[in-house]
Amino acid sequence: MARVVVDVMLKPEILDPQGQAVQGALLRLGFDSVTGVRQGKRFEIDVDGPADDALVSRAQEMAATLLANLVIEDYSVRVES
Amino acid sequence: MARVVVDVMLKPEILDPQGQAVQGALLRLGFDSVTGVRQGKRFEIDVDGPADDALVSRAQEMAATLLANLVIEDYSVRVES
Repeated sequence: MARVVVDVMLKPEILDPQGQAVQGALLRLGFDSVTGVRQGKRFEIDVDGPADDALVSRAQEMAATLLANLVIEDYSVRVES
Repeated sequence: MARVVVDVMLKPEILDPQGQAVQGALLRLGFDSVTGVRQGKRFEIDVDGPADDALVSRAQEMAATLLANLVIEDYSVRVES
């Protein structure tokens, strides 16, 4: 049993209105040192089997196939424990 | 200039239909070793100033005030670079 975490974020050149809304709210709440916010998705995936390189490459395949839209999003994969 | 990452996930005891839908799709795509998926949010927040303990506690305040709903969600904060 292993857990992989896949983070999916909009590419830097893609406008992120959700992140901008959060930034606006943080500024209104008085967190005035905030200069930028990007919001993305985090997937925690539990998988049967060992936490090895094969798992990383399978998780990358999951991300590229389903979890991320590669036209507008980047992903990163890491194995936890 | 520092960056904090805030991860917000549903508490383990809260049903996550979005994660279940992703799990179903992964299984249909042939990733049959997947035993569970939880989907959450990831915020990348750029902040003026140093990456110190004060930043971590400010980010925890942002998470508790705005980014997470503490009734149903947990958050974790970490400083990057």
